[in-house]
Amino acid sequence: MDYKQAGVDYSRIDPLKILAQQAARATVGQLTNTGWKEMPESRGESAYVMDCGDFYLASITECLGTKPIVADALRTVTGKTYYDTLAQDTIAMAVNDLITVGARPVSIHAYWAAGGSDWFNDKQRAADLVAGWKAACEASCAVWAGGETPSLDGIVMPGRIDLAASCVGMISPRERYTLGDKLQAGDAIILLASSGIHANGLTLARALADRLSDGYATLMPSGQMYGEGLLAPTVLYAQVLEALFTAGIDIHYLANITGHGWRKIMRHSAKFSYHLTSLPDVPEVLQFMVDQGPIDLREAYGSLNMGAGFAVFVPAAQAAEAVTLAARQGITAWEAGTVREGDKQVVIEPLEIVYEGSSLAVRSE
Amino acid sequence: MDYKQAGVDYSRIDPLKILAQQAARATVGQLTNTGWKEMPESRGESAYVMDCGDFYLASITECLGTKPIVADALRTVTGKTYYDTLAQDTIAMAVNDLITVGARPVSIHAYWAAGGSDWFNDKQRAADLVAGWKAACEASCAVWAGGETPSLDGIVMPGRIDLAASCVGMISPRERYTLGDKLQAGDAIILLASSGIHANGLTLARALADRLSDGYATLMPSGQMYGEGLLAPTVLYAQVLEALFTAGIDIHYLANITGHGWRKIMRHSAKFSYHLTSLPDVPEVLQFMVDQGPIDLREAYGSLNMGAGFAVFVPAAQAAEAVTLAARQGITAWEAGTVREGDKQVVIEPLEIVYEGSSLAVRSE
Repeated sequence: MDYKQAGVDYSRIDPLKILAQQAARATVGQLTNTGWKEMPESRGESAYVMDCGDFYLASITECLGTKPIVADALRTVTGKTYYDTLAQDTIAMAVNDLITVGARPVSIHAYWAAGGSDWFNDKQRAADLVAGWKAACEASCAVWAGGETPSLDGIVMPGRIDLAASCVGMISPRERYTLGDKLQAGDAIILLASSGIHANGLTLARALADRLSDGYATLMPSGQMYGEGLLAPTVLYAQVLEALFTAGIDIHYLANITGHGWRKIMRHSAKFSYHLTSLPDVPEVLQFMVDQGPIDLREAYGSLNMGAGFAVFVPAAQAAEAVTLAARQGITAWEAGTVREGDKQVVIEPLEIVYEGSSLAVRSE
Repeated sequence: MDYKQAGVDYSRIDPLKILAQQAARATVGQLTNTGWKEMPESRGESAYVMDCGDFYLASITECLGTKPIVADALRTVTGKTYYDTLAQDTIAMAVNDLITVGARPVSIHAYWAAGGSDWFNDKQRAADLVAGWKAACEASCAVWAGGETPSLDGIVMPGRIDLAASCVGMISPRERYTLGDKLQAGDAIILLASSGIHANGLTLARALADRLSDGYATLMPSGQMYGEGLLAPTVLYAQVLEALFTAGIDIHYLANITGHGWRKIMRHSAKFSYHLTSLPDVPEVLQFMVDQGPIDLREAYGSLNMGAGFAVFVPAAQAAEAVTLAARQGITAWEAGTVREGDKQVVIEPLEIVYEGSSLAVRSE
């Protein structure tokens, strides 16, 4: 079982992305006379960064994806809406990407596009979405700036909602900027634990549900329903990052482990080998997917987070302190490996899995 | 024929908006320690504004809506994709709102959520979308910062796309900020011409197409198809505003005339009467809708732009100069009326139409 079988064909999306990135790059002249400057290496990275003089400004728009389909299905079983957790997932998609450039989230806009006015008529679901959004803004250190709540009959499917978030952040002091050439051989790779599938791999997860006898209500070994396992809210990593920066950890690079799974660890544009020697416990819902799929481990680590939601690259001498600081914020972290000179690749040594650099095409060069 | 008949029920959306606005307002404490401050009167306005010291920062996320349905239908008749004009419409939704606070657009993120990977397989349509997006960024003085292009099977309808834009702008010098108490009795109301329906009222327009014998291919008196009339791209007003500010016009307030039509002229939170004495020529496509609907004129001016896409409020002594400056940017403008002391209302004198303040509920008080 893999992604193409489950209906997402990245080979069709990527050519458009590359065309769009090239066109976008050509608009840089519009910043002339603003006093602001583009940080060109932020093009194609997780957030766009401008130099505003005293500080850098970062911005991003991100979509939740198809996770609401799981919540809508499970509601018929448990009666809960889960839209508070989906709100956190949506904000995590934006915030966990934004912070990878060294930014502190400042403001968040909501984008809730429903498949008809009826969607908003369900008061419990709407209240859960609002409460979850507010809580996740606060947990991300960001103000909830506003939002757009269109009713899109004929575009969004009836009864469904397209959830997205836009976030603006500041990089201050400027030394927090992580997109430069700080990353170097010898750096430690600290991984931060995930809570489950987060919000990447849901198409695969849904395809599996269709094949299980009780669908999302199927019980996993612990007794928890598969659907509830999938709906564990995505961890928000902003406060951990603030704690690390505040403590003076010299963060060299950051990567959010989302689509493309552990291949995202080699997101930096430079040529390095990333050697992972210590693997986390796999969250039950991901292990369940691997077992039931079955999903080949190479496919699993190459498309799911497998227990590691975020990577922090620091000088080896500061690795232990970073792990301790993360734990104090309630996030399990561990020193998982090392950056080395060599061909661009991610090597998961305990599993003898190697992902070549060519397997992660996130930029137009 | 009116909006509720056409399927958009604002009474169901607004309670959620108010709940969300109240929750959003409660997150303001998150700005503590950033050195930035919220401009509280920007809450519920078209863009959210923060005071960053040397300048203000404005941000917004806006959705195009259901206009792609018209383009998709007309393509089967004419063979054109129209996604270059839809790109301009989408950017106009964000930029024409953002500039109402006095901001200059700086950066734009694209949000293109398709109902399946297949959407991106149509190379002509994708290329038109990219080219139109780039051109509209440049016409808005903004850099194309990046974007999100998810494939949302099961959320967005097959073959459709949900288009939205996020925009960040700067208000510099600070005197450009228009959300304060500059607006006063005696100010002139300058209206700027629209190109057609822009992107508000499309649900109504689509309902009408269903009742016409040739649908979107129905010819209007000029010989143009109804659908092509609908797809005239939304005017981008950013360059006109830059010209006015640069020339030293003391702009007191700005309103983007979108949903709620001319009722948006009384968007400012203060209590004033807005008297309109000079009406524009109505674009053919809007006149055609009024005639064929038929749409009562009170409903038409209360939900469509009827030829006026944007309102600029300036001291009466500067009105003539503002009109001339707009014309030099290629935008027809005219001195349409006056702000007066009195009950909050919009009075369209030539048509004897009055909209009470209570008919425009855009804020939670």
